[in-house]
Amino acid sequence: MQKGPLHDVSLEHLVALYQEGYGLPRAFYLDTALYEHELETIWRRGSLFAGHTCELPRPGDLFTFTLDTDSVLVIRADERQIRAFHNICTHRGTLLCEEERGNVRALVCPYHQWTFSRNGTLLRCAGMHEGIDKKALGLRPLHVKTCEGLIFVSFAETPPPFEGACEVMAPQAHSQGLARAKVAKVIEYEIAANWKLVWENNRECYHCNVNHPQYIKSNFDIYEDERSSPLMRQRLEEALARSKAAWQNEGLTITHERGGLAAFPDVERNIWYSATRTVLREDYESESMDGRRVAPLMGDYRNAHVGVLRLRALPNFWNHSSCDHAVSTRLLPAGLHKTKARLTWLVAGDAQEDVDYRLDDLTAFWRLTSEQDWELCERVQRGVRSSAYRPGPLSQTREYNLEAFLRWYVRQLSL
Amino acid sequence: MQKGPLHDVSLEHLVALYQEGYGLPRAFYLDTALYEHELETIWRRGSLFAGHTCELPRPGDLFTFTLDTDSVLVIRADERQIRAFHNICTHRGTLLCEEERGNVRALVCPYHQWTFSRNGTLLRCAGMHEGIDKKALGLRPLHVKTCEGLIFVSFAETPPPFEGACEVMAPQAHSQGLARAKVAKVIEYEIAANWKLVWENNRECYHCNVNHPQYIKSNFDIYEDERSSPLMRQRLEEALARSKAAWQNEGLTITHERGGLAAFPDVERNIWYSATRTVLREDYESESMDGRRVAPLMGDYRNAHVGVLRLRALPNFWNHSSCDHAVSTRLLPAGLHKTKARLTWLVAGDAQEDVDYRLDDLTAFWRLTSEQDWELCERVQRGVRSSAYRPGPLSQTREYNLEAFLRWYVRQLSL
Amino acid sequence: MQKGPLHDVSLEHLVALYQEGYGLPRAFYLDTALYEHELETIWRRGSLFAGHTCELPRPGDLFTFTLDTDSVLVIRADERQIRAFHNICTHRGTLLCEEERGNVRALVCPYHQWTFSRNGTLLRCAGMHEGIDKKALGLRPLHVKTCEGLIFVSFAETPPPFEGACEVMAPQAHSQGLARAKVAKVIEYEIAANWKLVWENNRECYHCNVNHPQYIKSNFDIYEDERSSPLMRQRLEEALARSKAAWQNEGLTITHERGGLAAFPDVERNIWYSATRTVLREDYESESMDGRRVAPLMGDYRNAHVGVLRLRALPNFWNHSSCDHAVSTRLLPAGLHKTKARLTWLVAGDAQEDVDYRLDDLTAFWRLTSEQDWELCERVQRGVRSSAYRPGPLSQTREYNLEAFLRWYVRQLSL
Repeated sequence: MQKGPLHDVSLEHLVALYQEGYGLPRAFYLDTALYEHELETIWRRGSLFAGHTCELPRPGDLFTFTLDTDSVLVIRADERQIRAFHNICTHRGTLLCEEERGNVRALVCPYHQWTFSRNGTLLRCAGMHEGIDKKALGLRPLHVKTCEGLIFVSFAETPPPFEGACEVMAPQAHSQGLARAKVAKVIEYEIAANWKLVWENNRECYHCNVNHPQYIKSNFDIYEDERSSPLMRQRLEEALARSKAAWQNEGLTITHERGGLAAFPDVERNIWYSATRTVLREDYESESMDGRRVAPLMGDYRNAHVGVLRLRALPNFWNHSSCDHAVSTRLLPAGLHKTKARLTWLVAGDAQEDVDYRLDDLTAFWRLTSEQDWELCERVQRGVRSSAYRPGPLSQTREYNLEAFLRWYVRQLSL
Repeated sequence: MQKGPLHDVSLEHLVALYQEGYGLPRAFYLDTALYEHELETIWRRGSLFAGHTCELPRPGDLFTFTLDTDSVLVIRADERQIRAFHNICTHRGTLLCEEERGNVRALVCPYHQWTFSRNGTLLRCAGMHEGIDKKALGLRPLHVKTCEGLIFVSFAETPPPFEGACEVMAPQAHSQGLARAKVAKVIEYEIAANWKLVWENNRECYHCNVNHPQYIKSNFDIYEDERSSPLMRQRLEEALARSKAAWQNEGLTITHERGGLAAFPDVERNIWYSATRTVLREDYESESMDGRRVAPLMGDYRNAHVGVLRLRALPNFWNHSSCDHAVSTRLLPAGLHKTKARLTWLVAGDAQEDVDYRLDDLTAFWRLTSEQDWELCERVQRGVRSSAYRPGPLSQTREYNLEAFLRWYVRQLSL
Repeated sequence: MQKGPLHDVSLEHLVALYQEGYGLPRAFYLDTALYEHELETIWRRGSLFAGHTCELPRPGDLFTFTLDTDSVLVIRADERQIRAFHNICTHRGTLLCEEERGNVRALVCPYHQWTFSRNGTLLRCAGMHEGIDKKALGLRPLHVKTCEGLIFVSFAETPPPFEGACEVMAPQAHSQGLARAKVAKVIEYEIAANWKLVWENNRECYHCNVNHPQYIKSNFDIYEDERSSPLMRQRLEEALARSKAAWQNEGLTITHERGGLAAFPDVERNIWYSATRTVLREDYESESMDGRRVAPLMGDYRNAHVGVLRLRALPNFWNHSSCDHAVSTRLLPAGLHKTKARLTWLVAGDAQEDVDYRLDDLTAFWRLTSEQDWELCERVQRGVRSSAYRPGPLSQTREYNLEAFLRWYVRQLSL
C-alpha cells in the first residue's frame, strides 16, 4: 500500500529528489519525519537568534521562547552575563517559567520547590534523600553568544563557530547602538506555513512590486542592475554618491552598491550570516510609511543619512535598521505547518513613547510589510499540499537568493 | 509492541479481513495509509462529479473545489469549453484562486504575477530568465467530460471510459434540462464521518422508516416486493400503470418498476453509474414536503407526472430530479473522518426566485432528509471507533446495495 | 533519518530506558504506539472503576463512559444486576446511547431499530433476512464486579481476579454505606496531560506543602515519621490515640498509623488496590474547607470521629470518604495527552440538597485540591515535551509511592 509522502523514505532518496534551479519537492513541506530531522540538523545544531541584551537590563531579568516543543529560558545572571537554560526542572521535568518575561532572584520550580540560582546551579531540593548529587542536577545550559546586543543561543553540544558571524556583523552594527537600545514594541505572529516558505519569501523581492507597494518606495530592492531603467539607474547612482559621502563622515562602509538583494547565503563557504548597508531612496530617511524619521537617531548616528543596515542569520533572524529604529524578526518553527515570527522594534535607549515616538508610526511599515509576506507564505503552503504540485523553475535573475537558501538548506540536512 | 490499527499492515491482509455479507472491518474506517490509498485508487482514478455547466454560463466563469488537499479549478474557457486545472501556480505552487467562484479574464498568480490564459497556457512570467520553456509551464489540466450539463473530471492520466456512463444517464436525464437549468441554492455540509459511511447510508433504505418519516411518504423505497402489504402492492401497481401512460406521452422510459432501491452498483460489470426513473406516491408531484410542486416545470416536461429521476455515479455523485427541480449531491473526502457534501438545487433556467419559487419550500425536503442522514453517518463513525466493533451481517433483503457498494469498493482497492 | 520519539522502537528497548529510582524517560509520555500498548495491556486488561451502584437505582437506569475511543454502557438489568456492554450496535456499529445517563426499557439502535434487552440479548432485528443467528448478535458484554457499591468493569476476556481487591476494600468501606448513598454532584475534568502524570501526582505529597495549603491542614500526609517535628509527632500520636478509641466503638480498624502516605501499590505482590483509614487533624471532622461536617453522617457511622477512609485501585480510581461524604475520582485516558477525570460526591442516601447539605460547601475542598493537581500535571506535560528532558531522581523519602507506581506500570507493560 502506498504510504503518505515520505513515510519510510530515506533522507538520501528525499535529497535526491531536489533539483538545483527548482523549488523543493512537495515532501519537503509535508513530512513529519523530515521536520524532526530539520530540528536536529538545523535548529538544534545552529546558532539561533533569541533576543536582545537590552531586553534584560538587570540581573534576574529573563525571557522565554519555544523552539517546537523545547522551552528555553534566557536570563541575565548574577555576574551580568547572559545565560540560557532549558526551561524545565531537573527533578520531574516541570516547566519552570510559564511567563514570557519576568525578573527573578532565583528559579523556583512550582511543583516541589527545587530552587536554582540565576546561574543554573541547584541551590535547594528539600525533601530529597541523603546523597543526592546536587552538582549534577543544575539546569541544562545552552551555549550563548552575544554580538552588538544580539543574543544567539545554540542547543548543540559543540555549537558552530560564531566568531566569523560576529566579525561580519559587529562592524556594520556597532554604530546602530543595539546594545544600548530600548524595546518599543513586540508583536508575535503565527504563520500557517512551514518555516522554509518564510525564508523563501524573504530571500527574493520578485514578489515585491505588486505585493509590497509601500516597501518598494523606500529602496532599490527590485531594481536589479540589468533590468533598471536608465532613470532608476541614475537615481541609484545619485543615492550611492550622496550616501558614500555622508557615510564616510560617519565612519560607515557601504557594502551593497547595486540594486537588488545582496547575495545571501553562501553555501560554498558555509556563510549563514550577513550584514550589509544599503542606500534608501532619495525621499527616505527611514523605513517608515512616508520615509520620515519616526524616532530619534539611534546609537552613534549624527545624521539620518545612514541608509539601512540589514543583518541576517540562518536559520531564524533578520533585522532592518534605519537611522532611528531597528526591527528584528525572529522565526521559530512550531510544527510542520506553523512558524512563529516575533518582530521587535527598537529605538534609542532614552527615547520616550509618545514624546519621542508614536508606536503607530514606528511600527506601521514593517507590520504591514511582514503581514503581506505571511499571507503569501500561507497561500503557498495551501498550494503545495496539492498532490499535483511539482517544483517549478526559479528565476535566475530574481530568485538567486532563494536558490542559495535551498542549496544551503539541503546541504545542512546531509551534514 | 502492537501498533495502531493498520500500521504496517499490507493491503492484501486488510482486504482479506473483509467478508462478503458483512460490513467493513474497523481498520477500513481508521487507517490513514488506507485512506491515502483510496485517494490514489478511487478518488484520483475515477470520474468525479464537479458541478453543473449552468454554473458557468460565461467564458471566464469558474468555481473551485478541493479533494482532500488538492484544489481544482473548473472554468469555462475561451472557446466555451469547460476546462479543469489544478489550482496552483506552476512556478512556486501558490494557490491561484482562493474564491469558491468568480469570473476572470486570465488567471494571475498573486505571488509573482505569472499569468495563465483561461485555457491554462502560461501567457506571461516577467522576471524569469531567458530560455524558460513557457510551453511546459502551463497549468496542469484534469480530464473533463460533460453529460447533459453534468461536469465530471478525472485526476487520472488515463481516465476511465466515460461513454458508458453518459449513454446510460443522457437518455434519462435529457428531458430534465439540467444543461439549461439555474442554480437556485447551494448548501455545503461537513460530515464528521468517513466517506464510505456516507455511501453505505445512501445505498440502503432500511433506515428510512424511522429516520426519514417525511421522505418515505413520497416514494416506494421501503416497499420491497416481497414485504409489501397487499394494499401497498396495489398502490404501487396503480402508480406504475398511471405513470407508464403519462411517461409514454412524454417519451420517458420507466426503468425501475419494483419498490425498493434499484440495484446499484454492479461490481461484476464494473458499473459505477446509474440512471433510473421511478414512480412517486399518488399524492406526490415532486419531492417536496407536501408533494406539491415547488417550482415551474423543468426542461422538456409538459406535465408533472414524470415521477423522479435518480442519477448516481461513484464515488461522489447522486441526484434526485422531480418535474420541477433537481438536487445534486457531491461528496468529497476532506480527511479520514471528514466528508464534505455539497447539495445544489436546480430549477428551470428562467425561473425567478420569490416569483416562481421560494427557497424554503424548494430546499426543505432534501435539506431535512440529508441532514437526517449525516447525523446517522456521524453516529456510526463514533461507534466504529470502538475497539469492540466487529462487522455485523448485512440484510440480504434491505442492504443488498450497501453490499454491492462494499464489493465494488474492495475491488477498486486492488485494481 | 531520525524518526520521532519511539517510532519503530521496540517495547523492550523502551522499557530498558527506564531506570528505577528515576522518573520515566520522555518517550513514555509522547509515543502514540506506546499509548496504544498501554490501552491493551493496562486499560483493557485491568479492572476499571466505572461508577457507583447508587447511580443506577432502578432497572433500566444506565450511564455511559468512554475509554479512549471505546464507549461502554453500564445498566441495571432486569434482574437488578449491574451489566456492562460495549455501547455499539452489533449490526453496523452505530453508537447505541449518546446520553451520559438515562433509563430505558430496551436498547433500540436509532439506525435500523435493532432492539436489545437490558441483558444485552438481541430481541428484534426486523428487516434482516431469514436465518440470522440472533443469539450470536447480542451486545458484547464486559465483565462486571461490584464491591460495596463500587462498580468495576473489565474489557478482558479473562479479567484479573477481583476477590482480593474486594476483600481488602469491603471491610474498610462497609460502614461508609456507599451502596446506600446518593450522588450529590458530578464534575468532569479534561486534563491536558498523559494519564500517568496524573497518577504520579497522586502518589506523592511532596508537592502538597506549597500547592495544597488547604488540603494539608486536614491531615498528616506531609508528616513523614522521620521528619516530623516533636510537636507534630505528638499531635499525630494524640490523634491516633483519640481515634483508636472512637473507632473501636464503631468497629472500625485503623490501618495507617504513621504520617505520610500509605505504601501503594505493591509491585512485588501485584497489589493494585488499597484501603486505609487514617486520622484527620484534631480540628477536622471532615475533609472540608474548615473541617466541619458538610452533610449528615453516612452509612453506619454514629459519630464523626471516623477519620478518613481512602480507597485506591489502579489504573483509574481513588476515593476519600469522610464521616459525612465521599468523593470518588475516576480517570480515563482520552488520548496520549488528555485524561478525563470525573469526580463524584456522595452523601447519605436520604440527605436533601439545601436542607441537609449545600453543594458549595460539600464540593469546595476536593474541587480546589483536584484543580490544583490538574494544573501541576499539565505543567509537567508541557515540560516533558522538551527534547532536553531527562528523568530526574525521585525522593526516596517523599516519592516512594510514585516510584512504586512506576515500577508497577513498567511491569504491566511487559506482562
